Amino acid sequence: MPYKHTMRSGDIRSIVYASVMVALILVLASAVFPRTVFAQAALPSWNDTAAKSRIMEFVKATTTEGGEHYVAPEDRIAVFDNDGTLWSEQPYYFQLGFVLDRIKALAPQHPEWKEKEPFKSVLSGDLASVAKSGEMGLVELVTSTHAGMTTDEFSKLVTDWFATARHPKTGKPFDTMTFVPMVELLQYLRANGFKTFIVSGGGIEFMRPVTEKLYGIPPEQVIGSTISTQYALVGDVPSLRRLPKIDFIDDGAGKPVGINQFIGRRPIFVAGNSDGDYEMARWATGGQQHGFALFVHHTDGDREFAYDRQSAFGRLDKALDEAERRNWLVVDMKADWKRVYAFDQ
Amino acid sequence: MPYKHTMRSGDIRSIVYASVMVALILVLASAVFPRTVFAQAALPSWNDTAAKSRIMEFVKATTTEGGEHYVAPEDRIAVFDNDGTLWSEQPYYFQLGFVLDRIKALAPQHPEWKEKEPFKSVLSGDLASVAKSGEMGLVELVTSTHAGMTTDEFSKLVTDWFATARHPKTGKPFDTMTFVPMVELLQYLRANGFKTFIVSGGGIEFMRPVTEKLYGIPPEQVIGSTISTQYALVGDVPSLRRLPKIDFIDDGAGKPVGINQFIGRRPIFVAGNSDGDYEMARWATGGQQHGFALFVHHTDGDREFAYDRQSAFGRLDKALDEAERRNWLVVDMKADWKRVYAFDQ
Repeated sequence: MPYKHTMRSGDIRSIVYASVMVALILVLASAVFPRTVFAQAALPSWNDTAAKSRIMEFVKATTTEGGEHYVAPEDRIAVFDNDGTLWSEQPYYFQLGFVLDRIKALAPQHPEWKEKEPFKSVLSGDLASVAKSGEMGLVELVTSTHAGMTTDEFSKLVTDWFATARHPKTGKPFDTMTFVPMVELLQYLRANGFKTFIVSGGGIEFMRPVTEKLYGIPPEQVIGSTISTQYALVGDVPSLRRLPKIDFIDDGAGKPVGINQFIGRRPIFVAGNSDGDYEMARWATGGQQHGFALFVHHTDGDREFAYDRQSAFGRLDKALDEAERRNWLVVDMKADWKRVYAFDQ
Repeated sequence: MPYKHTMRSGDIRSIVYASVMVALILVLASAVFPRTVFAQAALPSWNDTAAKSRIMEFVKATTTEGGEHYVAPEDRIAVFDNDGTLWSEQPYYFQLGFVLDRIKALAPQHPEWKEKEPFKSVLSGDLASVAKSGEMGLVELVTSTHAGMTTDEFSKLVTDWFATARHPKTGKPFDTMTFVPMVELLQYLRANGFKTFIVSGGGIEFMRPVTEKLYGIPPEQVIGSTISTQYALVGDVPSLRRLPKIDFIDDGAGKPVGINQFIGRRPIFVAGNSDGDYEMARWATGGQQHGFALFVHHTDGDREFAYDRQSAFGRLDKALDEAERRNWLVVDMKADWKRVYAFDQ
């Protein structure tokens, strides 16, 4: 349909008037509020410590045109670990909570689990014995709960679980336990032309249903561990079936591999919190470019959890030893963050 | 450094004046040029046939707010095959041209290739015998030429090859043999809020060095076949080494798998040209949503190449049989396109 517009002099007058008002407001605002006000408004949940300054200096250096360390917008790739970096990971990875709940829900269809490890220990709530079942036991738990359905069905299971499950310590929904300062950091980087990705050891299809809502990161910017899927017609309807077979573990030395496979560019900003993020930190800071790496150090047992070198989940040891030498930023959660969760006072 | 602004009345006057002028120009322009002018400017290298109309009707239906088939911008995912869909694939896939040239370049370091198939036939220019070596022979050629170097080194080999190699029929650089109407289609979809991806059977790292320049598609939106890579320190420098092992073949039933793995959403628009795109067309048009699939039919032996059911590269048979029944658009290159390549008159 052709666009029709009957011009009246009243239209022009009101548009001109509005334009003049907008221009006046902009001129007055820029005179009254110096730019530092806007700069200070970034990262409001970070204390004014060296950590915040270093982050902001890096962003300024990489976004100042003509500067020595300027990086073109398309190369401003920032990658974030998820467990322990964007949300909590204690007393166990949230995804393990999902696994335990699924085992309990599926148990009536599997009477043999009552006598079979590691299922038996899950059902009796004996997590120490579950841990003793080792990697093979864990793989069996994951494949028993993450496979055998279509991708759409799995996505719904995940969404439903987040809506109903509660964290064992806080009693809050798991997806409310994201770190406010880190969500602000994601927003701050995006506002400065960075493209933000998640690069996590967690399951890619466990994260994707919630990352847009929690972090503003769409599914196509989420990289994680995968199980194999297979295209198949169900009747005449195409579907993707999840198979009980681990395809790729996106952790440790797998993270640079996953980054290269999915993104095809080397990030210039990496945020992690454990030795599982060590190699991607090396990858981002070991090239020609001015790369930045940050490790969240869990120092706050009151507001969150305090752990590092000895933890079964999110062990931070080697990366902590090398941080100073490699000029990586260690964020002291207790000292550097004004608050942790959005539900904190 | 704090931002300082000393307001002068001259500043305000000139900004107000500029604003008024801009407002006037916008009002006059919208009255003088009806919107249909802009609509007709889309897809200029497409003839005004049913193909063009169907594409534009689909885009209108999915982008009209409040309409029955409206799709939110974040779900406007469009995927494009590459070989035969965005650039030519005859007399052989461009990547095979790269393989053949690499074998010749590497031959002095491999005297044993003179007596060993399929290398022997490559070196003597006997492509029929190369083809007879079958899939295993092809895999050997690919792994011999695509592995054993870092990802950065491979990227440079590809870039250098595109800069120097010439197509056997046209004598032009391979990367000038992209289809202008399809590049326009990518731009048209992006202008309407779609996010465009490549989903190709070709090697992911063979395409990524050129897709941004050719199609406006960044590396992280390119999905393709992969070989395994391994993170390793060379001295103390982190690198990714390409291994002689095929990791994933992004073709046929592998395409929906790759789409799900990389994008995590079901596309609503698919463009392909061969039976290798059949399953992703089913995947995009077989769900609840208003999906659209398009197949480029190579009907133009004068301007490009004419082939379909019998071709070794880009065979189009089953998808052609089912297109009408499934309401897939078959684009008749000869009838529907004003021109093919940018270097055409």
